[in-house]
Amino acid sequence: MTTQKRVGILTSGGDCPGLNTVIRAVVSHATLTYGWEVVGISYATKGLQEKTTVPLTLHGLDLRGIDPLLSMGGTILGSINKGDTLAHVDEIMAGYQALKLDALIGIGGDGSLGILSQLQHQGNWQFIAIPKTIDNDVALTERVVGFDTAVNTVVDALNRLTFTAASHDRVMIVEVMGRTAGHLALHAGIAGGADVILIPEIPYTIKDICAHLQELRDRWGRRFAIVVVAEGAHIPDDSLNYAACSKPSCGIGQLIADELRNCSHETIDIRAAVLGHIQRGGIPSALDRLVASAFGKAAVDLIASGKSGEMVAWQNGEVVALPLEAVLAKSPSLVDPHNYLVETARSLGIYVGNLQK
Amino acid sequence: MTTQKRVGILTSGGDCPGLNTVIRAVVSHATLTYGWEVVGISYATKGLQEKTTVPLTLHGLDLRGIDPLLSMGGTILGSINKGDTLAHVDEIMAGYQALKLDALIGIGGDGSLGILSQLQHQGNWQFIAIPKTIDNDVALTERVVGFDTAVNTVVDALNRLTFTAASHDRVMIVEVMGRTAGHLALHAGIAGGADVILIPEIPYTIKDICAHLQELRDRWGRRFAIVVVAEGAHIPDDSLNYAACSKPSCGIGQLIADELRNCSHETIDIRAAVLGHIQRGGIPSALDRLVASAFGKAAVDLIASGKSGEMVAWQNGEVVALPLEAVLAKSPSLVDPHNYLVETARSLGIYVGNLQK
Amino acid sequence: MTTQKRVGILTSGGDCPGLNTVIRAVVSHATLTYGWEVVGISYATKGLQEKTTVPLTLHGLDLRGIDPLLSMGGTILGSINKGDTLAHVDEIMAGYQALKLDALIGIGGDGSLGILSQLQHQGNWQFIAIPKTIDNDVALTERVVGFDTAVNTVVDALNRLTFTAASHDRVMIVEVMGRTAGHLALHAGIAGGADVILIPEIPYTIKDICAHLQELRDRWGRRFAIVVVAEGAHIPDDSLNYAACSKPSCGIGQLIADELRNCSHETIDIRAAVLGHIQRGGIPSALDRLVASAFGKAAVDLIASGKSGEMVAWQNGEVVALPLEAVLAKSPSLVDPHNYLVETARSLGIYVGNLQK
Amino acid sequence: MTTQKRVGILTSGGDCPGLNTVIRAVVSHATLTYGWEVVGISYATKGLQEKTTVPLTLHGLDLRGIDPLLSMGGTILGSINKGDTLAHVDEIMAGYQALKLDALIGIGGDGSLGILSQLQHQGNWQFIAIPKTIDNDVALTERVVGFDTAVNTVVDALNRLTFTAASHDRVMIVEVMGRTAGHLALHAGIAGGADVILIPEIPYTIKDICAHLQELRDRWGRRFAIVVVAEGAHIPDDSLNYAACSKPSCGIGQLIADELRNCSHETIDIRAAVLGHIQRGGIPSALDRLVASAFGKAAVDLIASGKSGEMVAWQNGEVVALPLEAVLAKSPSLVDPHNYLVETARSLGIYVGNLQK
Repeated sequence: MTTQKRVGILTSGGDCPGLNTVIRAVVSHATLTYGWEVVGISYATKGLQEKTTVPLTLHGLDLRGIDPLLSMGGTILGSINKGDTLAHVDEIMAGYQALKLDALIGIGGDGSLGILSQLQHQGNWQFIAIPKTIDNDVALTERVVGFDTAVNTVVDALNRLTFTAASHDRVMIVEVMGRTAGHLALHAGIAGGADVILIPEIPYTIKDICAHLQELRDRWGRRFAIVVVAEGAHIPDDSLNYAACSKPSCGIGQLIADELRNCSHETIDIRAAVLGHIQRGGIPSALDRLVASAFGKAAVDLIASGKSGEMVAWQNGEVVALPLEAVLAKSPSLVDPHNYLVETARSLGIYVGNLQK
Repeated sequence: MTTQKRVGILTSGGDCPGLNTVIRAVVSHATLTYGWEVVGISYATKGLQEKTTVPLTLHGLDLRGIDPLLSMGGTILGSINKGDTLAHVDEIMAGYQALKLDALIGIGGDGSLGILSQLQHQGNWQFIAIPKTIDNDVALTERVVGFDTAVNTVVDALNRLTFTAASHDRVMIVEVMGRTAGHLALHAGIAGGADVILIPEIPYTIKDICAHLQELRDRWGRRFAIVVVAEGAHIPDDSLNYAACSKPSCGIGQLIADELRNCSHETIDIRAAVLGHIQRGGIPSALDRLVASAFGKAAVDLIASGKSGEMVAWQNGEVVALPLEAVLAKSPSLVDPHNYLVETARSLGIYVGNLQK
Repeated sequence: MTTQKRVGILTSGGDCPGLNTVIRAVVSHATLTYGWEVVGISYATKGLQEKTTVPLTLHGLDLRGIDPLLSMGGTILGSINKGDTLAHVDEIMAGYQALKLDALIGIGGDGSLGILSQLQHQGNWQFIAIPKTIDNDVALTERVVGFDTAVNTVVDALNRLTFTAASHDRVMIVEVMGRTAGHLALHAGIAGGADVILIPEIPYTIKDICAHLQELRDRWGRRFAIVVVAEGAHIPDDSLNYAACSKPSCGIGQLIADELRNCSHETIDIRAAVLGHIQRGGIPSALDRLVASAFGKAAVDLIASGKSGEMVAWQNGEVVALPLEAVLAKSPSLVDPHNYLVETARSLGIYVGNLQK
Repeated sequence: MTTQKRVGILTSGGDCPGLNTVIRAVVSHATLTYGWEVVGISYATKGLQEKTTVPLTLHGLDLRGIDPLLSMGGTILGSINKGDTLAHVDEIMAGYQALKLDALIGIGGDGSLGILSQLQHQGNWQFIAIPKTIDNDVALTERVVGFDTAVNTVVDALNRLTFTAASHDRVMIVEVMGRTAGHLALHAGIAGGADVILIPEIPYTIKDICAHLQELRDRWGRRFAIVVVAEGAHIPDDSLNYAACSKPSCGIGQLIADELRNCSHETIDIRAAVLGHIQRGGIPSALDRLVASAFGKAAVDLIASGKSGEMVAWQNGEVVALPLEAVLAKSPSLVDPHNYLVETARSLGIYVGNLQK
């Protein structure tokens, strides 16, 4: 069909559910359809530099034929968050050649894919990118691997916290991941029944949050509230504790909690919770498995057709390929403060900050 | 903002997760944003004929302020599968007037929405449709309420059945919903690790299934298999039991099981399971809650802007409005046998029938 | 600590969640604490007869150090439901010797353990039993491996079916596993909010079910109902379709459904669902993992102390050892019609049949 | 059957899953079997002092007949953690009389039940206690409401964290609830595959943890680890940061993380996570629903038989009644460092501290 190839695959940046599902799809399609060999590269680009690999074979594990990669969270290749730097471009290329790779598939977020895109104009380098991130901030694609599971995980946590907050008339401030983009907070906040959603893209004030909580009490008799805040949400201009709190030592969730204690004359029980790394883990959702499988398949086909420097993406219900550079130029993709989800949140009576006039 | 309105809402056809989330969004937006009144209509169009209603108020239940509608499956309005017929158009219109409705929002599948679309050209009738169906067969929209949860439910069941099938070297035939469209079987089969997926849109033969199962054993040492079959999959031409089985008394899953017993000289343990109504139930997934909330909000806005005969839809990552008649003309939307998911299934080594040459 | 041993382990009878967790605990304790070797025996006693084994080593799988056995349902050793017969006692003993086993741990229900208990008085045979069954019918132990997960699985299914039954005013008859004992139906029915629970141990009449459903409608305005029936529940004396239905072709759930259609003059929508093999599968619950781990550890210790013919059991919050023969003499352990759970069901307004006067 | 009664019910202390299931069972049995009236008391004993009540009726909510109390976490009565003090005994008794209660059922942990037990010797006071706590530290009962769900919640979180820890070769320190008793950490740590479990009842040293992690790497090639630590675990004697960390500002999990950074010459990526309030929330597990239903029923029967000052309990597979004072005298019930679960943890290779010689 095509010539025999030896294809490397690596996962880069923070892990998320669905990475192993991509790896499974790539190995399956490359092996079954094209008869190629797939080589797992350990720890993102560090594995290229150090030439360390993980064997990947189809149905290779003795689990009575059950393939654990379909449903296992994380990545069996390992990943790194840092160290993926441009300084190592030469070593990366040397590793690629030493490992006798004909092509490379990289699964990463916009940060880690950026480094790999730099090698595009080197000779003899064939690279296809697959977007993954629980932040959902890769541009030009409606879906990325890992986001849907992360949203469901946060919704599950909000559900649990709602029961306990309601039982104790408590305002619960829930800090979720999202340093620059608030997609996770926005999606999960709407689906999880939040009362307030605070994201980096939309300014807000403590005064407005206080007024909103007061209205919940006065108008609806609601004595508890759930406030979802993205870790990268900005410190509001009317914060009184700004000086006392230098992130990340205190965290935006804790800061908001401290501020809200001054809301009213009533004593309100306010707690802050940081969801942390549970947001990255878990069995991938059905949608993440579908996206992962379709992206893995598409990446192998792009290699077969000789493409390089492209990223698979999801647009208009289809899997497409886009120039990686075009994607990176528009990433990170932030929440448009006027998009339909922000408006949906407002229609449900959720405070999501103040639109600039 | 706009004039005061009294808006009816009904759910029609088979229930699914997310209907109550739509109702909650409609009540919230209509009440909070526009100050309208929302009237729940019982049992689809039957409630219009019989003028029976369900009170719907915001935060109206004494559950310490927790809104059960966000996460509760099914529909508190009740629904009916049959009886929604054109014969009752006059009574429906009479009920609409008697209940003093200014507008109506109907949440239904393509069958039930078809009836309501007939009233479009009657005077004084304002109607907006919201698509829901676990079959995913409403045309021109990438998302419908209920489908994502149903896919996750089937994947969960496949996961359970895989463990037990593998333990006993068993071929498990799993019949899932889908009378005319195989979307649910296709999505869940891929995400759930099926070996064979049989859908109404693609012909298949018993001989080919046998050969595929034999290859799993011979090539990969796999001694179990999972076959997902949509209830509407056609009886294959090479069926030996065709005469003995008149659906629905036996069911396609049971028929396939009976046929596969003749596959080989080896004795294979083959069982058929019908997932049944558990596919309709359950707490809605995060995505279904988002789609439901966004659709509910959009429907209310369409009414505010005077539109009628339109259906809210999801296209290219946005909520849009389409003429309901155009949607119905193209529904039910079937699986394109050449689409990327069918190809993804094949790339994973799944048998999904034979493409016509 | 003790002399070096080579210990076999097998799983027998229908699979359930937690078997792999037991295997993991046995391998861990035997290897780490005693330095023994553990040999997996394939397909219950058939593996002894045929001398087929599965290698079992600690942390042996290349899944980045994640041990899949902790959470994986089913059994990696394989199992069989039939074929475990006394006719093969000599072959079983021959295999035990040929595989050079010093001791054997068998995880099974009362049926499969019965066969192995027959070898007790043969020379050179050291055997410890671990009880597992989703039927919970092993005597003298408060807990068995697999039951807690199965109860949760049925409760989850009842939750889903309740939403859809309520939406359509439907009486849903749900057939669950349990040929001789109704523990699963009773536990899951109470926890899952059933209205009627029918088990083999307690007689009931169609007339009484009809009266109970009528009272739900008349007194509480409830228009749907959930009836949980164990597959082994007896056909009631006042059945009209007795002759027409020879189990298992129709199934007790379908029979009840047919009978209830004659309940009243009103047309009631009645459906039957068979939960089937999903009840065996799934990720083991926390409690099943704890029971499995504690039982596996205790079985290894019993072997170290030279015991044989004993079964580990859970009594009064402790793990104990009992003579296997004493357990089998009292098994299957049925639901006592006067026990606290039956009374609890009645206190919740659930119809659970009629106590004999 | 008995005379008409007006029975109060309150929930006290930290909320947990299953409280609403108890309330439902009490209302159901008291209403259906005895024809009594049940009065919900708001916010534990504060509701008695302030005479604030919540109406409780059977099937009273308009959710198409689905009773939300069966599966809803938290407590619709509200609860308080503090304020339940002996100083208010007179006001509590005055409220009991003013509300014309004939009896009171209190669902609480050992702290909150202690206050109510003080009223036992006052005249005209009939009180039955039901134990609930996610700490599992109520003496003389094998089961309490809420513990099983909390264990499952922590296991789920550990599962998520394991995937991400394994992907990044990370040591993850997970702080779980448990100020004086380590039951939750011990149960969840075993079921969730922890490598180290630190509880208040068993001393441990940083040096030993380091040695254990080193052995995981050297002997098994394991490059990640999961350390579960109860919030009340003692600061180890060999802590270097003792002075720098005054709890709760840093938390024991963070302290352990800081200490472990000095473990070896290798750089290890170590993170601390605090699970926090998600441990209290969630839909109750099947077992918690059964325990809750059985306890609620038994409490009503005790009132009917004129008992007072007793607590319902679970012993040896049965529901029994014990003198509340006897229970409180032995509470909090700590982990016995020699119990079968601690030994099971060790048999699995888990470090659980050092037994005193």
